[in-house]
Amino acid sequence: MVKREGGALLLSISIDRSSKGSVVQQLCLSLRELVFSGALQSGERLPASRILARELGVARSTIINAYERLGSEGIFEMRIGAGTFVGEALNSRLPPQVTPKTTAKKKKITPPLKLSKQFSEFSNGFVDRLGHKPGPFTTAMPALDVFPGALWSKLASRHWRGHPEKSLGYGDSQGYLPLREAIVSHLRTNRGIECNSSQVFTMAGAQQAFNVIANVLVDVGDLIWFENPGAIGARNCFVAAGGTLVPLPVDKQGLVISNHRKANPDFRLAFVTPIHQQPTGATMSLGRRLSLLEAAESANAFIIEDDYDGEFSYTGHPLPTLKSIDTAGRVLYVGTFSKTLFPALRLGYVVVADGLLDAFSKATSAVLPGTPLHTQALVASFMQEGYFASHLRRMRKIYAERLHALLKASDKYLHGKLEVLATNAGLHTVGYFAKNYSEFEISRLAAEQGVTVTPLARFCIQPIKSKGLVLGFSGTNTDAITKAVKTLSGVFDRVDTARSKL
Amino acid sequence: MVKREGGALLLSISIDRSSKGSVVQQLCLSLRELVFSGALQSGERLPASRILARELGVARSTIINAYERLGSEGIFEMRIGAGTFVGEALNSRLPPQVTPKTTAKKKKITPPLKLSKQFSEFSNGFVDRLGHKPGPFTTAMPALDVFPGALWSKLASRHWRGHPEKSLGYGDSQGYLPLREAIVSHLRTNRGIECNSSQVFTMAGAQQAFNVIANVLVDVGDLIWFENPGAIGARNCFVAAGGTLVPLPVDKQGLVISNHRKANPDFRLAFVTPIHQQPTGATMSLGRRLSLLEAAESANAFIIEDDYDGEFSYTGHPLPTLKSIDTAGRVLYVGTFSKTLFPALRLGYVVVADGLLDAFSKATSAVLPGTPLHTQALVASFMQEGYFASHLRRMRKIYAERLHALLKASDKYLHGKLEVLATNAGLHTVGYFAKNYSEFEISRLAAEQGVTVTPLARFCIQPIKSKGLVLGFSGTNTDAITKAVKTLSGVFDRVDTARSKL
Repeated sequence: MVKREGGALLLSISIDRSSKGSVVQQLCLSLRELVFSGALQSGERLPASRILARELGVARSTIINAYERLGSEGIFEMRIGAGTFVGEALNSRLPPQVTPKTTAKKKKITPPLKLSKQFSEFSNGFVDRLGHKPGPFTTAMPALDVFPGALWSKLASRHWRGHPEKSLGYGDSQGYLPLREAIVSHLRTNRGIECNSSQVFTMAGAQQAFNVIANVLVDVGDLIWFENPGAIGARNCFVAAGGTLVPLPVDKQGLVISNHRKANPDFRLAFVTPIHQQPTGATMSLGRRLSLLEAAESANAFIIEDDYDGEFSYTGHPLPTLKSIDTAGRVLYVGTFSKTLFPALRLGYVVVADGLLDAFSKATSAVLPGTPLHTQALVASFMQEGYFASHLRRMRKIYAERLHALLKASDKYLHGKLEVLATNAGLHTVGYFAKNYSEFEISRLAAEQGVTVTPLARFCIQPIKSKGLVLGFSGTNTDAITKAVKTLSGVFDRVDTARSKL
Repeated sequence: MVKREGGALLLSISIDRSSKGSVVQQLCLSLRELVFSGALQSGERLPASRILARELGVARSTIINAYERLGSEGIFEMRIGAGTFVGEALNSRLPPQVTPKTTAKKKKITPPLKLSKQFSEFSNGFVDRLGHKPGPFTTAMPALDVFPGALWSKLASRHWRGHPEKSLGYGDSQGYLPLREAIVSHLRTNRGIECNSSQVFTMAGAQQAFNVIANVLVDVGDLIWFENPGAIGARNCFVAAGGTLVPLPVDKQGLVISNHRKANPDFRLAFVTPIHQQPTGATMSLGRRLSLLEAAESANAFIIEDDYDGEFSYTGHPLPTLKSIDTAGRVLYVGTFSKTLFPALRLGYVVVADGLLDAFSKATSAVLPGTPLHTQALVASFMQEGYFASHLRRMRKIYAERLHALLKASDKYLHGKLEVLATNAGLHTVGYFAKNYSEFEISRLAAEQGVTVTPLARFCIQPIKSKGLVLGFSGTNTDAITKAVKTLSGVFDRVDTARSKL
């Protein structure tokens, strides 16, 4: 014990020799806390370094070192011949409610923290996004088990052996030009989209693209047409900007707008997934596409085309994008590498019409941090050297096999329980209940068996009549898929058995 | 020429054999454009595949292939025995103003694109951010010339050889836990900050942290105390959220708040750089720190501490952070790896008080795309294995040498022109004019010689009396620094000579 009044306080200094922080650092942290918690008061004298060193069992130089550091911070004052004191500058400014007799145990002073009114209000409308725990039937999960890690690593090494300093800096906030050029070429070849690199903005994933679009285009109260059921993750971006979601139904031809157009003519933005409707898998018909383009034209509104997994088409040729027939520049096309390469990349892009270039340049250069330049350079090489095209071909084949395995197993084991649809494209499909089940009950029971099936209701803003499950088939191999279908079948059986006993 | 009425239109189809896109793809693009520009109208018959193939000099199967693809898109209709027609579904829905006789040259239909009122208004207040072109005296540029690329590459390879699939997925939107833990340990050891990993949110650079803070805390019209001169890049984030910047002066002790506290007591947020004031280099005194904390407490406001380059201290021990004496949780501490590692990483973080955790969790998980998981994993390894600490030590030494070279050369060549200050920390310092010069003239003339010196006025919201230049000393080696000082000296000489002739 330190032999002075109040010295007992210093007992609260504990030195952990197994810690990574040096003893001096730990000592400084503790002493600072003693001062700023009010346990050591302004003008109070510290024990002599010799004494404290003995009490704590450390070298005297360590104590002197800590005192000097706090001296240089203005927290302690060294008075020659008199010792070390808590600085007078601190004066009466320490929290008054803490008396010197209180132990130095940190007080959690919780002020009534005030958030912005806008955030408090709008964040009430946020929906929980889907988790993406790897495993059978998780959605939006590419085949990470067969990702060409060795090739990727080789390209990464080559990059670092080259002139990496060129891609270590800040880069263009619109995105690395060679990557934007590679995207233009990909869009022309695979998505029927003719654009130039000045219209492409790379983004930290599609999600950031939705945020930027919402910031640039959406005012508080603006109506956003949204597919119901529809994409979950994107919703919050528009809600956060103060937009009001207007749920529009979908059927086998995609978005149904006929009645809703009359009811809500003044929409600001429509959010659609025309190639592979999220989650039902419908491909939007040409008639519907034209209606939507017309509606946008007459409302002076925009359309976001979220082409989240349309690169994987199982019909022999790529399904057409909405953007490919947009002559008026109403469609903001959003693409992502999360499905075509891997989610951790956090790399997506948006293609906008010339009329929006200024606004998007402003929004990105003024406010956004940009996406990692070295990663963009790596993806650009991957695309330019043809690896991306062959990766897509290889993955398309693998996903087709996995889809086939799902359909085959479902036919065998889920007959009369879940009618799993074949899908033209994408990484998931939907299964509708053949009789009355609870989506959330089936989903919960399946999760207990390690199988992730997502209730269709999770995708809904308004309840819909159809009941079923969304099944990702891309993330696990065919054996795991077959096994998981059997497990799921067992879940249905258990529910059936429990019911028959009632 | 195609031998049919309107067939001349098809002349506008040009096939570029050097293009990466296949001929079928190019043909589809052109035909789609002809239809949607109105040059080919609904119900119109297409030339027979045999004829078009001959005209275009391609295989007939190519034409059939393209017709079939557009058929599957609903754009063309194949009528057995009659040929291929532009689909009736398109009907009268094509842009009416374009007559069939017009050439298919793409019409730029520029609708009166409407941005959100909020963006239109607020973006007027955006300031151009600084460019960071590598070269002498560029600010915020770490020593990329001595970046340990080989080591980084080795760790990256090891990562890819291991179980990369674990870090290819979506990850935790708050940030990869081992990285957050490594940050906690770094903050304890080097920044005197005691926090836990649940309070750390990794971000795509400090800029994203400022965006999130602005979204969560700032309402339209809220007052933001801002250093004048102060950080440029951060400003726009608060302006974009509708905040009003209140410029507060800085002196050698950092932010001066005495008078302004009375004038604007109800500020919502204060943005400060206490360790190494951006750009003047002042370290905020303890007295000022306490005043600021008190002001925040009484206004129920928050303080952003932007510790953008404080890790590099040249005084023998790390300079203390404001967060280290914040017992009330008023300080949001923002750190970045842009200076300690490299800017392209786009990795930063914010440490928030417990009372803000819910809001930040909501804001990040609901709306943000997260930061690349594989990059976070790599940085976490770099830190955990001690490479980061030795990298910082090595860089600190290099930067001290570069600063020394700048000061020595300035002493010799800029005497009577520019008084370059020694700085305690960071990657830049400031030079004040010894007599009357124009900041922008000197800066422009220096830029013509490849030397980047930034006018102090660029950092100002309101004009200040002091005139001078901001000089980054970290990005180029000592020889380049000495040479650039000589160049700069020549610029001053030229201006002096030109004046003496007047």
